[in-house]
Amino acid sequence: MSTKFFKILHKSKKSKARLGKIHTYHGTIITPSFVPCATKGTLKGILPSLLKEIKIQVAFVNTYHLVMSPGTSVIKKSGGIHAFSKLNIPLMSDSGGFQVFSLAENNRKKNTRRADVRGDEQPLVIKISKDGVTFRSTFKGETLIFTPEKSIEYQIDIGSDIMMAFDECTYYPATYKYAKEAMERTHKWLLRCIKKKKELKEKDYKRYLYGIIQGGTHKDLRNISSEFVSSQKTDGVAIGGVSVHETKKEMREQVKWASKYLPKEKPVHLLGVGQLDDILDLVAYGIDTFDCVEPTRLARVGKVFQKNKSNVLKTRSWNAIDIKNNDYRHDLSPLDKNCNCYVCTNFTKAYIHHLFKQKELIGYSLLTYHNLKFMEDFFERIREKIASDRL
Amino acid sequence: MSTKFFKILHKSKKSKARLGKIHTYHGTIITPSFVPCATKGTLKGILPSLLKEIKIQVAFVNTYHLVMSPGTSVIKKSGGIHAFSKLNIPLMSDSGGFQVFSLAENNRKKNTRRADVRGDEQPLVIKISKDGVTFRSTFKGETLIFTPEKSIEYQIDIGSDIMMAFDECTYYPATYKYAKEAMERTHKWLLRCIKKKKELKEKDYKRYLYGIIQGGTHKDLRNISSEFVSSQKTDGVAIGGVSVHETKKEMREQVKWASKYLPKEKPVHLLGVGQLDDILDLVAYGIDTFDCVEPTRLARVGKVFQKNKSNVLKTRSWNAIDIKNNDYRHDLSPLDKNCNCYVCTNFTKAYIHHLFKQKELIGYSLLTYHNLKFMEDFFERIREKIASDRL
Repeated sequence: MSTKFFKILHKSKKSKARLGKIHTYHGTIITPSFVPCATKGTLKGILPSLLKEIKIQVAFVNTYHLVMSPGTSVIKKSGGIHAFSKLNIPLMSDSGGFQVFSLAENNRKKNTRRADVRGDEQPLVIKISKDGVTFRSTFKGETLIFTPEKSIEYQIDIGSDIMMAFDECTYYPATYKYAKEAMERTHKWLLRCIKKKKELKEKDYKRYLYGIIQGGTHKDLRNISSEFVSSQKTDGVAIGGVSVHETKKEMREQVKWASKYLPKEKPVHLLGVGQLDDILDLVAYGIDTFDCVEPTRLARVGKVFQKNKSNVLKTRSWNAIDIKNNDYRHDLSPLDKNCNCYVCTNFTKAYIHHLFKQKELIGYSLLTYHNLKFMEDFFERIREKIASDRL
Repeated sequence: MSTKFFKILHKSKKSKARLGKIHTYHGTIITPSFVPCATKGTLKGILPSLLKEIKIQVAFVNTYHLVMSPGTSVIKKSGGIHAFSKLNIPLMSDSGGFQVFSLAENNRKKNTRRADVRGDEQPLVIKISKDGVTFRSTFKGETLIFTPEKSIEYQIDIGSDIMMAFDECTYYPATYKYAKEAMERTHKWLLRCIKKKKELKEKDYKRYLYGIIQGGTHKDLRNISSEFVSSQKTDGVAIGGVSVHETKKEMREQVKWASKYLPKEKPVHLLGVGQLDDILDLVAYGIDTFDCVEPTRLARVGKVFQKNKSNVLKTRSWNAIDIKNNDYRHDLSPLDKNCNCYVCTNFTKAYIHHLFKQKELIGYSLLTYHNLKFMEDFFERIREKIASDRL
């Protein structure tokens, strides 16, 4: 109650970039910040006891995945996702809405309703209506309904600190007509989410709600959505649907359009964007937090993020080498000679190459650790630059 | 030079069990001790930074696997397996001889020489002669020769603290004639290993060599082998070939036969035995160290070791539950209510069940951690019992 949810510490004189502080029951996030994905309640390959030394401030969990397994009842019973997973840092959750997109796209592509669908990310949508979304689960094939109210209930049970309103993330490219309908649905759903959250009144600790800006690739829809969502009584705002299949140029445009209407006093999250060059450009539009699976997913296939020279911000792109490459078989240098993380100060490329070739479990952990530390270092530099008005 | 390799701290008044101390350049092992397997230079799923808190004193690496990948040259170039893998504890290595067994068995069963063989553990033996073993690698199909001299060279390059002499582990059941031939070969190979080690004179730190007792399931051969190996100038003695396909009864008999001739002043290692009831019985025959993949391999398929009541030594068997069982879906109790390890003090069965169901990487790490801690606790109890003459 006493501490404000979001506080701006410094505004850059050069852009809309700002240094901020998000306060939650489970800790404080200094922004801009990266939000690594702990989709199913685990940061893949990383024991929670390591979060502190990697300096991870916040993570992202996925409501759809957690509803499917282990189910929200056991998470609630155990005192929430923090207690359940021991991810003792602020956690954000999505609404399940992103799945609406994959469902719709899946449906559109296949143009068929298969009786049972396997696979993790693409359940079969049965119906999108003004009430919500009905779909068939990919876990056990059962029929499920996600509505704005259900989504909020689920997220409160999960116990994330920052919740997203239920939205429809339209497929790309969506027609103007469809994008408008989906956006209007998303706005109505936002009002229902706000209402539901008020009714439920979480008792143990305060949750915060972000509305989601949609509108596809259409400028006027993005403007309308940004203005509408920003004007609602939410704790923060998120921009959705920008990293679906758009080009980088389109994605940046969509953020730029929205940025004009973004509330200056609320934190802004960008959903699903995490490439370094994008982050650098979009921080300048006032984005405070970014979630993305890329650094962790790439780590698990052997891709190593490396700083350019000694300063990662000197150039806009990162190098990524593939540790599985035979060039590294006898390479006794660290993953990144400019990195001082546990992995780079202890292990050689040759050792991690060997672990990957032999599919040894700690190979995935070590590379994930390094890539996450890389991201944290990257954001630390960004914050330094903002503090000194150089971004 | 100054500190003795093996020191007996206490002899039980009830049996041949003893409390000891093995001193190596990379640390001290209080015996009896468990020796978990880090086959390919990694304790599967466990970051080296965790060894200390699990209280792992020593680990086992496999020469055959390391020769195949990453190769001994890169290990040597990086300063040895300790520097390469950051397993900063005393390490034992086998000689590659156990593979002789799997090769021979493979060959015997198939009775055919296939041109290319895939699979991790069963390369194709081409020839066993008095000189050594020629076989085709399962990694890339190349022809390889292991001789006593090669084995010692490899192990010195790997840089383990405790090396095993090159032996032939006969298949089970072996005829008397074959077991005798193999044993005699093993004895001759031991002399060549001792000679080779003397010639090579490791410079960086002292390595220790154990001879291996063989003889199959034949009492007189075991007696001969035990007497011969024990009388050689090695730093320790190992008993091999007892856990191949023998019954528990046969295995214990083989150790019992050997135990009469075991040197009282040298440490004794038992190769490949690690079930709790066996350990309890065999410690009483004077075994000091035991390597076994069981606690870690079972962990990776979801099997959880649990203490019986509050004292694991009250009964001779452990309980193992399968965390994948649906009974644990909503079980908020720890893996083992009598365990105070990091895993049991932080996580619930329900969470780890969820991780296993979703094939999440840290599931394997958490269960391996717990099972290893269970083994360390188990040996701590054994040492307490010996110290107070209760075993």
